[in-house]
Amino acid sequence: MARVSQEHLDARRRQILDGAARCFARNGFHATSMQDVLKEVNLSAGAVYRYFSGKDELIAAIVNEVLAEIRGAFEDAARHTPPPLPDVLLGLVMTEVLGLGGTARHGLTWDGEASFPRLMVQVWTETLRDSELAGVLREGFGAVRQAWVKVVEGYQEAGLMRADVPAEHVARTLIAAAQGFAAQQALFGAAPVEVLQDGLRALMSMQAPR
Amino acid sequence: MARVSQEHLDARRRQILDGAARCFARNGFHATSMQDVLKEVNLSAGAVYRYFSGKDELIAAIVNEVLAEIRGAFEDAARHTPPPLPDVLLGLVMTEVLGLGGTARHGLTWDGEASFPRLMVQVWTETLRDSELAGVLREGFGAVRQAWVKVVEGYQEAGLMRADVPAEHVARTLIAAAQGFAAQQALFGAAPVEVLQDGLRALMSMQAPR
Repeated sequence: MARVSQEHLDARRRQILDGAARCFARNGFHATSMQDVLKEVNLSAGAVYRYFSGKDELIAAIVNEVLAEIRGAFEDAARHTPPPLPDVLLGLVMTEVLGLGGTARHGLTWDGEASFPRLMVQVWTETLRDSELAGVLREGFGAVRQAWVKVVEGYQEAGLMRADVPAEHVARTLIAAAQGFAAQQALFGAAPVEVLQDGLRALMSMQAPR
Repeated sequence: MARVSQEHLDARRRQILDGAARCFARNGFHATSMQDVLKEVNLSAGAVYRYFSGKDELIAAIVNEVLAEIRGAFEDAARHTPPPLPDVLLGLVMTEVLGLGGTARHGLTWDGEASFPRLMVQVWTETLRDSELAGVLREGFGAVRQAWVKVVEGYQEAGLMRADVPAEHVARTLIAAAQGFAAQQALFGAAPVEVLQDGLRALMSMQAPR
């Protein structure tokens, strides 16, 4: 009995988070009221407040999930052996982040392709004014950078990339390309991951002056 | 007399916009009140409301300026002949966007290095829920993409880059790298432009499989 009950609690919590995430992706954190969330999930105030004390707690939960999703996507991509080349690596990340690869890690579900990137941009803004959430973001970025530095060092050790450039700088640049491409999805609508992959392959075909 | 008066009006309007931009960069559009702006610019409500009917009009003015600054930086960089290689091109854009290159086009002034990127991320979020501002952003992105497509076509025609990849995809990827790098500045603080330039040079040193 107890286990069923816990499952029920978890499922209800999940239902509330998914509904809130849909509201936030559509209208942003500030323009969304708890009334909007109640209506979206079709639950009473009593049922929802049992899980979340208010909008701030809901926002914090969503921000934490979104950041964990993104961090997970970057870390997963870096775990492939041998490390895939940048165009394949970023394809893996973006496919997972855009949720095209199936159910997202935490089961968050979205209305459309651009919903997750929209939420991501809003999460960024939220972390600008919340030092606790900023700390979560900063820690995640540190972990992702570390994982990607190892990938870049792999390229350099294998002679695939010039070795006189700090791997950290390359990792930051690759992450920036992914972040910017995700921002474009949020701002201008869905675009196939191949756009970014083509761009990286073209860059890799150039000869950089030393 | 009339000219002095117009200059005075312009300067006062500028003073209000600069102060509001500082408030917004610090606390975001939603957490900033008109009272905060009045305090920041040290003017009476009457003086400020002569120029802006309220916060929404101030936000719209700031968003328009920020987007024009960014669009200008991308378009300026694309105007160099011969077109600089990607690492130099993105260095030019980022230096101008980060305001390290001197006074910003519209005279916006900032508290610190990361202020403009912070405002940029907030502007993105604002465009997600305001279709008019989204239109301005979309138009600017179209113009920037067009200018950068020409640069990429220049690389391809000069035999510097493989020509079997749509120039549009490369342009979007380069813009994404700039956008993501700017977002990193907003989220994690200032980083030298050389980080991004190193990263691009390292990518350009790789051999992409065809």
